[in-house]
Amino acid sequence: MKISINRQYFIEQLNHCLKAISPRTTLPILNGIKLEVKEDHLLLTGSDSEISIEITIPTEINNEEILEISETGTVVLSGRFFVDIIKKLSGNFVQLETNDAFQTKITASQSEFNLSGNDPDQYPLLPEVNDEESIILPSAVLKTIINQTNFAVSLSETRPVLTGVNWQFDDKGIQFTATDSHRLALRRLEGDQFGMDSMHAIIPGKSLNELNKIINDSDDEVEIHFSQNQVLISYGNMRFISRLLEGNYPDTSRLFPENYETKVTVNNGEFYHAIDRVSLLAREGGNNVIRMSVDDGNVALSSNSPEVGTVHEDISTGNVEGENLKISFNSRYMMDALKAINDDEVTIEFFGTMRPFTLKAAESDAVVQLILPIRTY
Amino acid sequence: MKISINRQYFIEQLNHCLKAISPRTTLPILNGIKLEVKEDHLLLTGSDSEISIEITIPTEINNEEILEISETGTVVLSGRFFVDIIKKLSGNFVQLETNDAFQTKITASQSEFNLSGNDPDQYPLLPEVNDEESIILPSAVLKTIINQTNFAVSLSETRPVLTGVNWQFDDKGIQFTATDSHRLALRRLEGDQFGMDSMHAIIPGKSLNELNKIINDSDDEVEIHFSQNQVLISYGNMRFISRLLEGNYPDTSRLFPENYETKVTVNNGEFYHAIDRVSLLAREGGNNVIRMSVDDGNVALSSNSPEVGTVHEDISTGNVEGENLKISFNSRYMMDALKAINDDEVTIEFFGTMRPFTLKAAESDAVVQLILPIRTY
Repeated sequence: MKISINRQYFIEQLNHCLKAISPRTTLPILNGIKLEVKEDHLLLTGSDSEISIEITIPTEINNEEILEISETGTVVLSGRFFVDIIKKLSGNFVQLETNDAFQTKITASQSEFNLSGNDPDQYPLLPEVNDEESIILPSAVLKTIINQTNFAVSLSETRPVLTGVNWQFDDKGIQFTATDSHRLALRRLEGDQFGMDSMHAIIPGKSLNELNKIINDSDDEVEIHFSQNQVLISYGNMRFISRLLEGNYPDTSRLFPENYETKVTVNNGEFYHAIDRVSLLAREGGNNVIRMSVDDGNVALSSNSPEVGTVHEDISTGNVEGENLKISFNSRYMMDALKAINDDEVTIEFFGTMRPFTLKAAESDAVVQLILPIRTY
Repeated sequence: MKISINRQYFIEQLNHCLKAISPRTTLPILNGIKLEVKEDHLLLTGSDSEISIEITIPTEINNEEILEISETGTVVLSGRFFVDIIKKLSGNFVQLETNDAFQTKITASQSEFNLSGNDPDQYPLLPEVNDEESIILPSAVLKTIINQTNFAVSLSETRPVLTGVNWQFDDKGIQFTATDSHRLALRRLEGDQFGMDSMHAIIPGKSLNELNKIINDSDDEVEIHFSQNQVLISYGNMRFISRLLEGNYPDTSRLFPENYETKVTVNNGEFYHAIDRVSLLAREGGNNVIRMSVDDGNVALSSNSPEVGTVHEDISTGNVEGENLKISFNSRYMMDALKAINDDEVTIEFFGTMRPFTLKAAESDAVVQLILPIRTY
């Protein structure tokens, strides 16, 4: 292969590609990026065998030449070294030339690197994704969905299905669920165009995290194709492929209680900052437990650390219904849940000191966050 | 004590004060900040017993009230918790009130913290600095001096004097020297006003580092007072006190050779970036060794990593004098030295493959950097 390529554009695409590469891979060749020069484009591939990212670089973008192809060919180059070199070179264009032994000469102005490359035949084939079912979302909507659910996936491998977000399709739309069994995040997306017959897919939280770093907060279309074991996400010049988690996702619908005992509406930002302050004295034990009380319409938060001191916060709320209450919870879970609710007013419904409570926007059920309390009273 | 204080201004001053506090102190009370409320000001003190920082907060700045004093008194509060609390509170002003048991109530809008405080009598007395000799420097000049020398101090405690920068006064000015015995940084500051009779003081590198984070790049005056074992630096409303290192600093004057064998003048930025690129393939062994050659007026850098590949850089220079040369050195030391020379043109003088070489600005001797080569040829 022999090409000349716009260095800044190349760096951006390589940075996306690196997101699929894990330094802890067991297959050494997966530390590399595969470069395939075809007649009229360059294809970059990075993979850690769970996530694969494929990027197509055309010769021109908006009539500006970004890639000049002198000779086709394929090579795999050590991802870390290769990208560092391209970043530190000077000049607008960089030249790459690979010989039969996959030795690759990289030149730009007065610099010349010769990198040992690997035989692309050693590089594993990407999984085939048969386009069985697919939907289209604006990237901003997908980003919001990821932000509202993905934080709640389990980080423990004891129940692998819980490390992913469950996408449950029904005839009216999609329900996204994530839980680590201490808290649960639920988001509904309504729309006939998403309607499918009771299909479900569990996408690993780690894959959604990496995808979230790549897609923009914009109207750009994201095409999502599901097959039996894989999901393929097409976005601009990129194909992002992730395996799906196998197994049955637990039925979480029965977790949501009805008929609250206590209902409180608070200002999202003020409540968030109050929790943040109160948790300052709750982090010593490592479990961030803070207490909340509802007493004759007055809402207060408190915490104490025996060696350090105590804290008390009064919460302004014009809206308290139902019984008095004392409850304790993990402040981190509460702050995550508040961030996931894109609304200034948040309604919290409690069902007693020992039962899970729920948070949602005052005016919408699209997002519901559920948190298990901690027994301290 | 009982006060009300402007929260933003208080946070800035507390952040400065925290720079003297080390989480690894052996004396637990030094994890705290001492607050002394006097009749007309508040005095903050932080210390790790090597560095102490004292900050005076007046009641008004530019006719704006920043501190209201209702009752004098003194308390020591856990630095980490106290500063985090003040930062996370809301409102422009925060109230502090300490009782006889040093319990301190911190209130702002709807928040109330009660922090356990410590008896200030347990707090060690700061060292007295008798004003024996002193000089005044603009803060920007002091910052430059620190940046040009402090990186070269030794990080190893085997020869403690080398962990500091030696300030050697003579009748014409001050010479600043730092060395870790692999490279040496030297800066001269000329001026009769600095002239003192052969006094010297070794200031710990760590103290200069912290000082550098606090002082601005401006014309503000910094007063530096030396006593037998301490240096006191007065800057605005702050007194910064550091112990001096005891012992004799080695005589480094004989290290500087005369009559170069090879002399090369390079563009500072271009040479720096070329070294940065070549060192990409030199970091594997951990010693960052790169090779430089001067051959009939052509200057080149190179390096290789057996598994990864090779790199070659041609260096543009209009100015090569003397013998041909092959030499190897640590690229990190070379990059540090180039950064310390505030000039676009750098002159490098070599005295043979095995002898130290020097770098300085093409037009000035104020800064001289000396680097020992590494035997590879």
